[in-house]
Amino acid sequence: MLTLYFAPGTCALAAHLVLEHARADYRLARLDFGRTEQRSPEYLAVNPNGRVPALVTPHGVLTETPALLHYICQTHPDAGLAPLQDPFAMGRFHEFNSYLGSTVHVAHAHGRRGHRWVDAQDTHALEAMKKKLPQSMEEVFRLVEERLLQGPWVLGERFSACDYYLFTIAGWLEGDGADVTRLPRVMEHRARLAAEPLVQRVLEAERAG
Amino acid sequence: MLTLYFAPGTCALAAHLVLEHARADYRLARLDFGRTEQRSPEYLAVNPNGRVPALVTPHGVLTETPALLHYICQTHPDAGLAPLQDPFAMGRFHEFNSYLGSTVHVAHAHGRRGHRWVDAQDTHALEAMKKKLPQSMEEVFRLVEERLLQGPWVLGERFSACDYYLFTIAGWLEGDGADVTRLPRVMEHRARLAAEPLVQRVLEAERAG
Repeated sequence: MLTLYFAPGTCALAAHLVLEHARADYRLARLDFGRTEQRSPEYLAVNPNGRVPALVTPHGVLTETPALLHYICQTHPDAGLAPLQDPFAMGRFHEFNSYLGSTVHVAHAHGRRGHRWVDAQDTHALEAMKKKLPQSMEEVFRLVEERLLQGPWVLGERFSACDYYLFTIAGWLEGDGADVTRLPRVMEHRARLAAEPLVQRVLEAERAG
Repeated sequence: MLTLYFAPGTCALAAHLVLEHARADYRLARLDFGRTEQRSPEYLAVNPNGRVPALVTPHGVLTETPALLHYICQTHPDAGLAPLQDPFAMGRFHEFNSYLGSTVHVAHAHGRRGHRWVDAQDTHALEAMKKKLPQSMEEVFRLVEERLLQGPWVLGERFSACDYYLFTIAGWLEGDGADVTRLPRVMEHRARLAAEPLVQRVLEAERAG
């Protein structure tokens, strides 16, 4: 049995979608960010970093979305959500997930988590980050639009966990003020996944109390 | 034959160390950041993102350090630099590399690449980022010091590519103004690797014109 700690609207959705697709034996543990439950002593004992997702496995806790996706895919090979036996394709898999985590998610975080990188009282600097957010999200998504999203899926003809990660982060574009008309391929990919019953079921589970 | 595009002083050192340790058939292609060669048309044809590292393989180009490390380890299994057959250990492997790439490297980048997240003319905001750099580097390294670095190596008794990645990024601490006396385990790990002939040979190759 696996336990996924998540909060609605976060990147934990990617691991949730992959768990569901892989028919993994898992349960959800919801954190209420509005009540800063991610900073509670109980949760910090699970993940000292105070962030989601965290996946409790029989061997210990894992954090970081690229690690969770790799772990779920490798422990559920029949789901076929990663090209496990093809080193170059796995290179592409990790290239994509690393780019989303270290560049795209990071650009997004400057909208509301700017205090990680400047003094929390420096309202000018925090506002400067918010101001650039639409532009920087468009910039970092351009590489996805023009190169990394091979089409029809991220890794080409092969559907993979990367598609769920992209779907998750592309859901933040409008909220970050990006002009999504410049990202037609990303938007078409997102719409295609949004229409999937599995995706709708998982989103419903996250909304439900 | 593989080709590693690198620049001295960058995170490309991690992939360089792993290639050397794995006795891979590779050559180096040096970029001079002082002459912004990473923005040349020739290099942008290799990596449209204009960053290092990039690894040219027989199947195509890979970018993103966690992806390069995974690819080199999977194509050189005899080197034993990743616990390829152990899903939970691979989860730890990717958790560590993802944390270094998306949190530690990103904290560091706010020292000199702040224009990624605010207007390049906003000197107040850029200075605010530089000002917090020592503190944020100490904060993000605390999780490595207290939890992720299991000891004696990152993954415990097993040496892996993660150790070379940590060595690479820990080399930036003093330059970023961090108080390294707060990170005794990270410093001891770094000193242990710095004494290795292989590490010295690779550093010498990066310094040589």
